[in-house]
Amino acid sequence: MKPFFEYVDAHAPQYIADLQRLLRQPSISAQGVGVAETAAMVQDFFVAAGGRARLVTTPGARPVVYAEFEGGPGPMLAFYNHYDVQPADPLDLWHSDPFSAEIRKGRIWARGAADNKGNLMARIAAIRAYRDVYGALPLPVKFIVEGEEEVGSPHLADFADGHQDLVQASGCVWEGGFKDNTGRPIIYCGVKGICYVEIRVSGARSDLHSMWGSIAPNPVWRLTWALSRLKTPDERVQIPGFYDPVRQPTPRDLDMLDDIPFDAAERAADLGFSRFVLGLEGRRLLEQHFFQPTCTICGVGGGYGGLGVKTVLPNAAWAKVDFRLVPDQDPDDVFRKFRTFLTNEGCGDFEVTLLAAEHPARTPVDDRLVQASVNVARTLYGSEPILYPLVPGSGPMYALCQKWGIPSCAAPGVSHPGANIHAPNENIFIDDYVQTIKGIGLLMAEYGRKT
Amino acid sequence: MKPFFEYVDAHAPQYIADLQRLLRQPSISAQGVGVAETAAMVQDFFVAAGGRARLVTTPGARPVVYAEFEGGPGPMLAFYNHYDVQPADPLDLWHSDPFSAEIRKGRIWARGAADNKGNLMARIAAIRAYRDVYGALPLPVKFIVEGEEEVGSPHLADFADGHQDLVQASGCVWEGGFKDNTGRPIIYCGVKGICYVEIRVSGARSDLHSMWGSIAPNPVWRLTWALSRLKTPDERVQIPGFYDPVRQPTPRDLDMLDDIPFDAAERAADLGFSRFVLGLEGRRLLEQHFFQPTCTICGVGGGYGGLGVKTVLPNAAWAKVDFRLVPDQDPDDVFRKFRTFLTNEGCGDFEVTLLAAEHPARTPVDDRLVQASVNVARTLYGSEPILYPLVPGSGPMYALCQKWGIPSCAAPGVSHPGANIHAPNENIFIDDYVQTIKGIGLLMAEYGRKT
Repeated sequence: MKPFFEYVDAHAPQYIADLQRLLRQPSISAQGVGVAETAAMVQDFFVAAGGRARLVTTPGARPVVYAEFEGGPGPMLAFYNHYDVQPADPLDLWHSDPFSAEIRKGRIWARGAADNKGNLMARIAAIRAYRDVYGALPLPVKFIVEGEEEVGSPHLADFADGHQDLVQASGCVWEGGFKDNTGRPIIYCGVKGICYVEIRVSGARSDLHSMWGSIAPNPVWRLTWALSRLKTPDERVQIPGFYDPVRQPTPRDLDMLDDIPFDAAERAADLGFSRFVLGLEGRRLLEQHFFQPTCTICGVGGGYGGLGVKTVLPNAAWAKVDFRLVPDQDPDDVFRKFRTFLTNEGCGDFEVTLLAAEHPARTPVDDRLVQASVNVARTLYGSEPILYPLVPGSGPMYALCQKWGIPSCAAPGVSHPGANIHAPNENIFIDDYVQTIKGIGLLMAEYGRKT
Repeated sequence: MKPFFEYVDAHAPQYIADLQRLLRQPSISAQGVGVAETAAMVQDFFVAAGGRARLVTTPGARPVVYAEFEGGPGPMLAFYNHYDVQPADPLDLWHSDPFSAEIRKGRIWARGAADNKGNLMARIAAIRAYRDVYGALPLPVKFIVEGEEEVGSPHLADFADGHQDLVQASGCVWEGGFKDNTGRPIIYCGVKGICYVEIRVSGARSDLHSMWGSIAPNPVWRLTWALSRLKTPDERVQIPGFYDPVRQPTPRDLDMLDDIPFDAAERAADLGFSRFVLGLEGRRLLEQHFFQPTCTICGVGGGYGGLGVKTVLPNAAWAKVDFRLVPDQDPDDVFRKFRTFLTNEGCGDFEVTLLAAEHPARTPVDDRLVQASVNVARTLYGSEPILYPLVPGSGPMYALCQKWGIPSCAAPGVSHPGANIHAPNENIFIDDYVQTIKGIGLLMAEYGRKT
């Protein structure tokens, strides 16, 4: 691959300029800013790189940019990316305009640089360079680039269901990759699912004087009692059947945890508390983090929140609760069981709304896409990558991949611990961008060769 | 008392004009508006009525207007009132200026008309009329008129402790009186106490991504669990020793409840729910309402409260909790036990603040001040008054009365169910004002005669 690497280095200025061009085009899905223009621009980049590309629309959705590149006899390799970005607020905390893509101190500073335009453009650049150097790709490649990832991918499952032919692939490389704070690359093979619910409890017609606390029902108390029974202080969710589909980690899964560097005391101190829940440490702590579902109160409220005293019996209360799910839990099943739980607890009158639902997804570490990704990371960085069985966050991986039997995992990418994803002054190192281009070229060769 | 009644009717226009003059002088203690001017005006009214009056200041407090009137050989009768009023907001909901004291449809409309200037001026008018008709009062009378009742009487206990000579009396008539929605007068012989606390719980240095919900401590969960153990769904407070000082109602106390008209189904429907807590009805419901302490969450909060989804693990949570206390509970003792409870629950790191504390207070119904009040109500309204052993709300009655062995209760007053106390369009009926003047004259005669 030496000629490829040299070619990428020689043409890096152009790949950087292409990325800057895309970064200067805002594409804020939450605010509807520049989305159509960006989709068209991404389509143009695909065509310029020698692919066939089109915009695929699903009712109510921002368009998916779908692209295909012909290649050698290897298996079909898919890439998932998104062209939308988070809002840039608060603007006054940026040191340069978030859509100027200014280069400073070896980095490109822009909203979307790390999440996710840098990865997308590195992949396109790798394809251009590969074709320029070798004449053809070693395998056929396709891209699914959505425009709604930053608002929760509400239509990606519809897209996949309606276009199963476009989704089909031997493996799907997930949106990006990152390094830990020691510079070691992280490869993850899955995501947790999510079931995010909102609960509203009503009481009297209006707030009452708190002297009625003796005999009038208080929705804040009712919510408090229901939540305290939902998850108990032993961190166990008490919904009947909640844990039934949880796949227990295998001995090999648990062995993987021993290879993940995680200094619990140091991390707790960084985060600002003295210990993790239940005093967990070591392998048990990571097992809980990676292989156990969660139940988190993301917000709660009701009654008087101002300064000092108001003697009021509130007439409403609410909570937002987030379940992170592990294989083989199903968010719709969890929601059904949650409703039944409430009814059985005498809370059938609570108003509950499902605000977000995604399945967990996991690809076995011995899958050859994962192994190809690991081999590439070893070659590229000269160090052993850290392999996460899954990340504790969520994403639409299942809807696009595992639901159709398609393995998926992350590959080397442009992000780093100081990349400020979703925050002011998002940035990537130019060196990481160029290295990611090389890594994607290596991955195509590695995954193509192994057939 | 016929000459007295006729005299009051004849001079009603002047008594009404005097009340309007006081109502037109704002005295909003929470905002520091017009307090000193009002205190001086009240002092002037006392002097004009033939009394000796002065302003008594306690460090940090708005002045108490203290007044004395000489009288016949009867026992010293004290009156407690307050000259401050609630803020008039929201102003746009008033049909006339809250400080114009406009007369419309037989009512005077003004902030403070019912709470509490109407009662104060009716008492002063009764003294003037009594002296005008009979030459002297039947007993000596004193007034303690504070300027901080609407902000929780934070210095009235200091005043009483520092001026025990001024407080001394044979009985103390509480601030006012009211009728129920059938027009029957209500006499109450006590108040519940209060212990109002604020709880703050801290977690990580900042809000975290909710994927950390697996292992990072969540202050909202910790608060939820602690609250759920503080009061259980059987409505029992679980603080060890909380109920120890609670005086059990006597058979006579319980018999009083049977004379209180209270249609539980109708009242629940009015308030907008289907049943009271625990499905209580009849005497058990009223026993809970009048003789049991409460624990009410007045407000709770933490984390994300906006629209839709935010996957956040909050780093802080808070609650405001109001305990209403019955004899012989002590708010400071309850606060101490509450802190111990939290420590024993593993919540010693919770930050707790005592925001308000008042003792419960109760005078036996066979006390002669209560009986005088009842007799006056019978004479005045021609119907049997409703006798409340205490009201489920709170007030500084203990600090001024029971602490010094002084019986106290309500007397006939100007308020009514549509008086809009603490709300826009506060008002009293002019007929009720004139009748209250007569009632206070009757009460002085009755209480003086019985010695």
